[in-house]
Amino acid sequence: MKVEIFITLKKGVLDPQGKAVERALKSMGYEDVKDLRIGKLIEMEIPGDSMEGTERKVQEMCEKLLANPVIEDYNFKID
Amino acid sequence: MKVEIFITLKKGVLDPQGKAVERALKSMGYEDVKDLRIGKLIEMEIPGDSMEGTERKVQEMCEKLLANPVIEDYNFKID
Repeated sequence: MKVEIFITLKKGVLDPQGKAVERALKSMGYEDVKDLRIGKLIEMEIPGDSMEGTERKVQEMCEKLLANPVIEDYNFKID
Repeated sequence: MKVEIFITLKKGVLDPQGKAVERALKSMGYEDVKDLRIGKLIEMEIPGDSMEGTERKVQEMCEKLLANPVIEDYNFKID
C-alpha cells in the first residue's frame, strides 16, 4: 500500500525556514502570500497487510521516529 | 485561499535522507517498508483572488523558487 505522511510544525512553533521563503516570495512580487510554513512529506510503500494493520504501523512509525510530537503534528493517507 | 504544495524528488534521483530513514525503520522492526522518499510540504495562504489566478501564481512560484525543476517534481492543492 502506498502511504503518504504529512508532517507539519505545530501552530505557535517558529518556522524560520518558512519565514525566509515567504520573504523571498514577497521580494519577487508575491506580496499577498501569508502564513507560509514548511513541513515534510514522507512517501513509502508497505506491501500487503490490511488497511487497519497499515494504519496502526504508520501511526507507530510517526510516534516513534518520523515526527517529533513535541513540536510537530502528523497526518497520513493510505492508498 | 489555502494552498498546499507537495515537492518530491524525481524518480531516479538519489535520496540519501530517505534511505537513512528507511534503514532506521527496518532496524526498528518495520522490515517491509520500501521505497521511502522524503519531500517537502509547503503550506501558505493567498487571500482573495480567483482559483485560476491562484493556480497560475502558485505554478510560477514553484517554477521560479520553491522547486528545483531539474531534480524535483511538484504538485499542489488549492482550497
